[in-house]
Amino acid sequence: MTLAEPREFSLIGEYFRPLAGPGALALTDDAALLRLPGGRDLVLSVDAMVAGVHFLPDDPPDLVARKLLRVNLSDLAAKGAAPLGYLLTIAAPATTSDAWFEAFAAGLGADQRSFGLYLLGGDMTSTSGPFSLSLTILGTVPPGRAVLRKGAASGHGIFVSGTIGDAALGLDVLQGRLADPSGFLIERYRLPTPRLGLPLADFAAAAMDISDGLVQDLGHLCRLGGVAAEIDSPLVPLSQPARALGPSCLSRCLTGGDDYELLLAVPPDREDRLAAAARFGILLTRIGRFVPGPPEVRVLGPDGKPMPFARAGWSHF
Amino acid sequence: MTLAEPREFSLIGEYFRPLAGPGALALTDDAALLRLPGGRDLVLSVDAMVAGVHFLPDDPPDLVARKLLRVNLSDLAAKGAAPLGYLLTIAAPATTSDAWFEAFAAGLGADQRSFGLYLLGGDMTSTSGPFSLSLTILGTVPPGRAVLRKGAASGHGIFVSGTIGDAALGLDVLQGRLADPSGFLIERYRLPTPRLGLPLADFAAAAMDISDGLVQDLGHLCRLGGVAAEIDSPLVPLSQPARALGPSCLSRCLTGGDDYELLLAVPPDREDRLAAAARFGILLTRIGRFVPGPPEVRVLGPDGKPMPFARAGWSHF
Repeated sequence: MTLAEPREFSLIGEYFRPLAGPGALALTDDAALLRLPGGRDLVLSVDAMVAGVHFLPDDPPDLVARKLLRVNLSDLAAKGAAPLGYLLTIAAPATTSDAWFEAFAAGLGADQRSFGLYLLGGDMTSTSGPFSLSLTILGTVPPGRAVLRKGAASGHGIFVSGTIGDAALGLDVLQGRLADPSGFLIERYRLPTPRLGLPLADFAAAAMDISDGLVQDLGHLCRLGGVAAEIDSPLVPLSQPARALGPSCLSRCLTGGDDYELLLAVPPDREDRLAAAARFGILLTRIGRFVPGPPEVRVLGPDGKPMPFARAGWSHF
Repeated sequence: MTLAEPREFSLIGEYFRPLAGPGALALTDDAALLRLPGGRDLVLSVDAMVAGVHFLPDDPPDLVARKLLRVNLSDLAAKGAAPLGYLLTIAAPATTSDAWFEAFAAGLGADQRSFGLYLLGGDMTSTSGPFSLSLTILGTVPPGRAVLRKGAASGHGIFVSGTIGDAALGLDVLQGRLADPSGFLIERYRLPTPRLGLPLADFAAAAMDISDGLVQDLGHLCRLGGVAAEIDSPLVPLSQPARALGPSCLSRCLTGGDDYELLLAVPPDREDRLAAAARFGILLTRIGRFVPGPPEVRVLGPDGKPMPFARAGWSHF
């Protein structure tokens, strides 16, 4: 019997094999085989994206792919790790066109070249539901140089990279609730920038990336450090397009997800090392401090009084 | 503001944190941090399972979890690798009960103890569609001891582990097309046995696990080795419950998926080493041979003549 290959094999061969790197065995095997660079620790993370939850069904597939890769790269960035490779699961409606896969793979290809990693393996399946994507990323870090979420202590400064809230506002724009003449906010929602390359271990006692909203994610650093946090809301860096929307958007910026900026705890005696970040073109801003007390996050308004919030951030269930 | 945790965090804390092992950072971080055992290569694989495609929506969640882990363990088994850990993505309907997660985690816990690996990290999200699960598995192998799909050559014997076709027949039983008085076939569909622990590199020139059907999967070994394959169908090991269904089930057994048995190419001068497999209680049976010619799979009937098939195996698209 001559062998007709199922369509998933031709899709893999056509669009994904060109993305494979050393150890991926050209995506023709059950597994990838990897010899790690000597003397480095492995950093592993996985993040999923589901259509209708993490992206909009009509978002361009190349941007969906790049966001999927970038949210995972952001996890490596938060550890101070360097990217190595990734494995990918695509559950797609059976009616998905070749053009979708082609554009999706093109997006991966563009970003893996930019960020210096490659495809190691994957799985492709059909689903009766929406696109369900999962990406497992591998990075490496010199032993002892990984920065964890745990480590914030009273007296540490709270720092963030970039500007906060743009992505949540971008989603509001895409859903017709706001206007964004420049397109900046939509871009920030669709294509986050992983803050890779900083020598985090030089100055951060704890770090994470902001994916579910600043207030909620800062709560994680508080719980793991056994401390409370105070944010001075006037210090939170907002982009010009966000500021243009007026003060009413502050609450949305502080609790909206998808920023993928870094959130850092920096001991006072290491703040002078932050200047190094400027070399990488990454803005780092002090927005508050960790203080003694049970784990909680207080956001202080311009008058120094705590501001109330309806919710701290994103919840799936 | 006091911090109310989203439900996914309490689910992770309650049901999944107990499954975490060294390097998983108690599932409280963005990533896992792992120092590999010295002098071993890393083997990585990912397999997804979607409700309605890979399992039935009303399958018991503990068995779904164990199958998800086992289909990935089977990929390690096909490489001759030893299990190390895994990362898990769960996209679940927002209405999923705590009891579902509890049973799912209990299934993972039972099997990770049996097979000697642990949870390294994961992601949990809601979906408007069916359950969409993805598991990335890590294993290790001494350098040079990984067996690949590529390596079959003319003259090699074709061997399989266990019995072939039970899982496909089990699915037929669950869907009401067959009777299975003993429950054996259903069990084989729901709970495959990864054939871990064999010293594959001692005797196999190429190996893979059978997930999409013997004929189709054997085609992969043919293409990668640049050879044809002949199966003597009377030699294919069928279980007693499969044989009880009569000769009409042979075609289904040869092309049905979900067996997760090993498929091996064994050079003639290494066949004497197969006796070692008996020590592990794993039946290995010679079912045919690789022969010169363009990549194709011929199944020979009891009369030695090629048998026709409507399809070679499973296709998603």
